[in-house]
Amino acid sequence: MTAEVVSVGTELLLGDTVDTNAVALGRAFAAAGLSHFHRQTVGDNPKRLRVALDLAFSRSDLVVTIGGLGPTSDDITRELVCDSLGLEMVEDEEIVNHLKSLFRTRGRPWVETNARQAMRPAGSTVIANANGTAPGLVVESGGKMAILMPGPPSEFLPMLTDSVAPILARIGGGELIHSRVLRVVGRGESQLEQDLSDLMVSENPSLAPYAKTWEVHLRLTARANSVEEAKRMIAPLEALVRGRIGEHIYGADKEELEDVVLSQLRSRAETLAVAESCTGGGLGERLTRVAGASDVFQGGVISYANSAKVNVLGVLPEDIAEHGAVSERVACEMARGARDRLHADWGISITGVAGPDGGTLDKPVGTVWIGLAGQGEVAAIEHRFGGTRTTVRSRSQTAALTTLWRRLR
Amino acid sequence: MTAEVVSVGTELLLGDTVDTNAVALGRAFAAAGLSHFHRQTVGDNPKRLRVALDLAFSRSDLVVTIGGLGPTSDDITRELVCDSLGLEMVEDEEIVNHLKSLFRTRGRPWVETNARQAMRPAGSTVIANANGTAPGLVVESGGKMAILMPGPPSEFLPMLTDSVAPILARIGGGELIHSRVLRVVGRGESQLEQDLSDLMVSENPSLAPYAKTWEVHLRLTARANSVEEAKRMIAPLEALVRGRIGEHIYGADKEELEDVVLSQLRSRAETLAVAESCTGGGLGERLTRVAGASDVFQGGVISYANSAKVNVLGVLPEDIAEHGAVSERVACEMARGARDRLHADWGISITGVAGPDGGTLDKPVGTVWIGLAGQGEVAAIEHRFGGTRTTVRSRSQTAALTTLWRRLR
Repeated sequence: MTAEVVSVGTELLLGDTVDTNAVALGRAFAAAGLSHFHRQTVGDNPKRLRVALDLAFSRSDLVVTIGGLGPTSDDITRELVCDSLGLEMVEDEEIVNHLKSLFRTRGRPWVETNARQAMRPAGSTVIANANGTAPGLVVESGGKMAILMPGPPSEFLPMLTDSVAPILARIGGGELIHSRVLRVVGRGESQLEQDLSDLMVSENPSLAPYAKTWEVHLRLTARANSVEEAKRMIAPLEALVRGRIGEHIYGADKEELEDVVLSQLRSRAETLAVAESCTGGGLGERLTRVAGASDVFQGGVISYANSAKVNVLGVLPEDIAEHGAVSERVACEMARGARDRLHADWGISITGVAGPDGGTLDKPVGTVWIGLAGQGEVAAIEHRFGGTRTTVRSRSQTAALTTLWRRLR
Repeated sequence: MTAEVVSVGTELLLGDTVDTNAVALGRAFAAAGLSHFHRQTVGDNPKRLRVALDLAFSRSDLVVTIGGLGPTSDDITRELVCDSLGLEMVEDEEIVNHLKSLFRTRGRPWVETNARQAMRPAGSTVIANANGTAPGLVVESGGKMAILMPGPPSEFLPMLTDSVAPILARIGGGELIHSRVLRVVGRGESQLEQDLSDLMVSENPSLAPYAKTWEVHLRLTARANSVEEAKRMIAPLEALVRGRIGEHIYGADKEELEDVVLSQLRSRAETLAVAESCTGGGLGERLTRVAGASDVFQGGVISYANSAKVNVLGVLPEDIAEHGAVSERVACEMARGARDRLHADWGISITGVAGPDGGTLDKPVGTVWIGLAGQGEVAAIEHRFGGTRTTVRSRSQTAALTTLWRRLR
């Protein structure tokens, strides 16, 4: 069975938006064993969208559209899918009521143009949108199937995972592609290539490294008739990889470093507090992306100004004067201060020069000290990161989590 | 003149690779004044690539292909562009010699398959590739033009900037597209559509809203012979828009809400501290994305656990017991606590239920209180946000910044 994507939006062609939705959809097609031969991208133009849809329906069994489901007059996907498939549009009272109650709950006035979002092709099924107003739609007609999905990634991605992926799995069926990702910290892509070069020539299952910011993901992929078969093919390759570089693998698949660290703490019934200078709260933000972090993560102090380091964390002003705010001494005092003030078992600190200004000969941009304090122990490590302000900040967060992960292992 | 992109590569359809090249190319088309109506993405399959190329040449004056220029047998773009345009392939001796010397320099053995990369359409021009082996190619035939570019971004992007953009500027010649973005908070896309519906029918300059997370961007776009002319066309439309909804516009173009708030504080010589519960440090992280924030941003407290609210911010335990941690009272005490502890002029707080768990009938997921404390003043506002944990958290940050922006205006 063949599937095709039609991405709708002038902003995609103008280069204002990267089409990450289509990437996620491509992966979902592969996972469901659907053959994916074509993707078309068109602007919010009725004539050209119609041509694209006609072409897609002429050659593909399933057409998934992304975007153009909003309330405004340039949201034209619903109408044109109907035209292309020769279907009528009907108003869905349930959607209208749902939208009206949504607007009431949010205290926003109801505007009549929103009723556009309640129109749907006759005979279609509605996919609830938990994160926005435009519902998704599934249409089947004349042996063809269309799935209409909203464009904002915050609506598209949950809908893909929760509702559309199961539909794809049901209609897919044939040979599928299944991957497992091993997540590595503290070892670069080229080192890994050396460690594993002989395993990387394998074709099915295959092994490929993908460099992320300060992590490398090793993707093990098999093409098989079932997920179980693919998993059986991947297992021995994974064992070989782990045998060589297991100590650098912190997790697998969707597991993030913050998930693993929070689990480590939970299983030890210990708590954590942070003290952040150059990351400004980013480490705390990352830890609290994980729902349920509150049982081990107490909170922390964003000590961006030196006075905050002194007033809230109890760092000694003379230590800042003598060693500088970016120093081993201050990193240790910040970690200890966070641990004490927040009554936590562990305190972790970040203080560094994120740039672009503020670097010196001694402490160039990218110099970052990570401190870790536990009961009766405190230490700090220096890092020198390359890259932009954003990169330095995100690498600092990952380095802090890596330090904690290694200590708790 | 119309331009079309054909991106070639099975990895694009499998979702292994994000097509950032096509995004950069879209921007380059717009800057050169080329109309860009279509993008096609196909795998490394001769039959399907041929169909895509035929379609592209049938409707567009310029076709730019990305990828499929490598040395292996699935690199088929050269051949198929020749087929589609009815041209012969010729071997280019200069390219052969260049490739051979490149291999010598890098100490790699010459493999005969590399000679594929020296084949080019008869009558084509070669674009040197400073960062890889496959050269780019420019072909003109029968009133159509094709530019063939390599797929790896490290080769594609420099070639675009150095060699292809000047070609596009020359052939675009006439009109270019220039946009200005007005950034709106506190007013939804559908409300804006009502406010501005009569202005949205204008075609040149045009006005279109784009919904972001909790913001809306109004894009004013003009097609003109020069950037100056485009700006002159946009100015009166911008004045009309500002006349109607100016109070909701916080900035323009690349200006973020955090930039504006920090500037407001700076011009008043005032400082800011934050107290974050459900956002876990995200507001601080956002404020410190701005280099040089340290002159006005003192830092703050991530009071994720209730004990942190009490111990570090001085929230009264009996208020948490009576009103709950997500309440007007606690939001006010948090804001005041941050202001006091950090010795700042302003304290802003966020406490809410980000979900997915923790909601109650009274305080469902998405309930967020934003507190603001200044000298002799403290107040809090309740919000009810929809969406995922991620959305609730990022909307809370924006709401906090919006509150401060309005107060300081």
